[in-house]
Amino acid sequence: MRGAVLHAPGDVRLERRDDPSIIEPTDAVISLPATCVCGSDLWPYRGVEAVDGPAPMGHEYVGIVEAVGSAVTTIKPGQFVIGSFFASDNTCEVCRAGYQSSCVHRELMGAIGTQAELARVPLADGTLVATPDVPPDDLIPSFLAASDVLGTGWFGAVAAEVSPGKTVAVVGDGAVGLLAVLASKRLGAERIIAMSRHESRQKLALEFGATDIIEERGDEGAARIRELTNGLGATRPGGHIGYVGVTHGELPGDELFFSHAHLHGGPAPVRRFLPELTDLIWNREIDPGRVFDLTLPLAEVAEGYRAMDERRAIKTLLCP
Amino acid sequence: MRGAVLHAPGDVRLERRDDPSIIEPTDAVISLPATCVCGSDLWPYRGVEAVDGPAPMGHEYVGIVEAVGSAVTTIKPGQFVIGSFFASDNTCEVCRAGYQSSCVHRELMGAIGTQAELARVPLADGTLVATPDVPPDDLIPSFLAASDVLGTGWFGAVAAEVSPGKTVAVVGDGAVGLLAVLASKRLGAERIIAMSRHESRQKLALEFGATDIIEERGDEGAARIRELTNGLGATRPGGHIGYVGVTHGELPGDELFFSHAHLHGGPAPVRRFLPELTDLIWNREIDPGRVFDLTLPLAEVAEGYRAMDERRAIKTLLCP
Repeated sequence: MRGAVLHAPGDVRLERRDDPSIIEPTDAVISLPATCVCGSDLWPYRGVEAVDGPAPMGHEYVGIVEAVGSAVTTIKPGQFVIGSFFASDNTCEVCRAGYQSSCVHRELMGAIGTQAELARVPLADGTLVATPDVPPDDLIPSFLAASDVLGTGWFGAVAAEVSPGKTVAVVGDGAVGLLAVLASKRLGAERIIAMSRHESRQKLALEFGATDIIEERGDEGAARIRELTNGLGATRPGGHIGYVGVTHGELPGDELFFSHAHLHGGPAPVRRFLPELTDLIWNREIDPGRVFDLTLPLAEVAEGYRAMDERRAIKTLLCP
Repeated sequence: MRGAVLHAPGDVRLERRDDPSIIEPTDAVISLPATCVCGSDLWPYRGVEAVDGPAPMGHEYVGIVEAVGSAVTTIKPGQFVIGSFFASDNTCEVCRAGYQSSCVHRELMGAIGTQAELARVPLADGTLVATPDVPPDDLIPSFLAASDVLGTGWFGAVAAEVSPGKTVAVVGDGAVGLLAVLASKRLGAERIIAMSRHESRQKLALEFGATDIIEERGDEGAARIRELTNGLGATRPGGHIGYVGVTHGELPGDELFFSHAHLHGGPAPVRRFLPELTDLIWNREIDPGRVFDLTLPLAEVAEGYRAMDERRAIKTLLCP
């Protein structure tokens, strides 16, 4: 099969890789009708994260089940399935509490690399959610979005305890931020402030349900939020911060203490939300696939990365 | 009147101070039948916080209302009242959300100094809660505990979302930690793990409702909690951390991120809980005053600080 491999910062190539096969009896192998590039793929691409030799890339995936191991009981060949960037058993105490991305048996799909034609999925029964039938092609981008960016934006909104009547500020106008706007709208927020200075992203934010746009960043942006929300802080005392981007660096303990904020987040347990999100997409109630504003053949994966790196594209869809 | 004044680390004295009077029309002046020393008073006493010239000490208080300003409508002379370490209007948006210690008009009682015979209380209508009648003397220590350490321990438990059936680990065996045990018990926790290596504190923790005692600290202590709770982390993914001690230093962002913990805390909005706590004490359903294990005349305030500094006492009660 063909798959994307990162050799060094800025150097991503489509190459021949070995076809995956069933290794563990709990595995499945799927074929991917489309795949995509994530904002977090840009960290090693930009050299912010170290690149130690050629690394398969990609962790977002949907596909048709081609084969399953002997211990797989609920997932069947021929099904269309969606999974998350962590494979998870979905039965341990942590999974049952809704934190599948901290599953005691979790496996990182990024190490497997799903910017490819085929992929092995560990713990198939726990990891994969099947749609009622093979969906029409036009729904594939939305299901692919559910695999990470929609699920992550959704978790951000849930972690921030967005609920009917609330005011929420969304920091970040990438696919995750834009889909956090969509999630906040679905969860009933009354006022949704999107922070963005890019016209195409502002437009999509408004279409997804944003009520206000703030172009300022940092302290100036927080001051604008205070203006819009009656002089209280960007997060008011007792307010909720949901955070889903890896926090590099340190948080000032005393500032956090005196802010009185609730803080919750981490790697999004996308699996928790997949059944609900799959239904919403299947019934065409949401259209998260609209975050893909560039579609390329898989062979042009390098241009797909470049366009996102240069912020010419929000998110790149790759078709074989 | 007489009041405690800190001159330098280790040098606290009872001195003559001016009698307080009504300054703002929203003030009250109260006389204090007893006062006490807080663990946080030990920071400047130990020189961990800077001491800039003579400073009046104390921020916990109960007392009889001696006088009120012209704008005070609900608090009356002769009432027995309890307040918190922040005076608050109890009407602003932040107060109404339950975060009176971040009130937009808050005033720090520590700057007024309540280790004294009399004290001025700003924003009397918002700050003070009156008991149904003047209580018998034996209840005074418990009401005094409600002013800070009980309210702070209670907030810690509420911030950690302690509820029926939950398991909670209480870090810290001072008055606040011990009363967080009491609060966790009242809030229905099934298992309450107290971390303490002092026999008298362990004993009180068990009497307040602790089910397990851990003597180990730091990483070793966390490992013991994991042993007791089926191999999950000291806080499991998705678990709740309530913190009420000022966080000195930095928190590691990535560790917090991958922990999946909920984090909430800050300076305790004691005022939120005072009506409920006052009722529980008045009806003798809780006895938080048991944290006072040393009673001294106010004139011996210096020995009261020393005993706490040397951990000979959990908490010192001072009577005029």
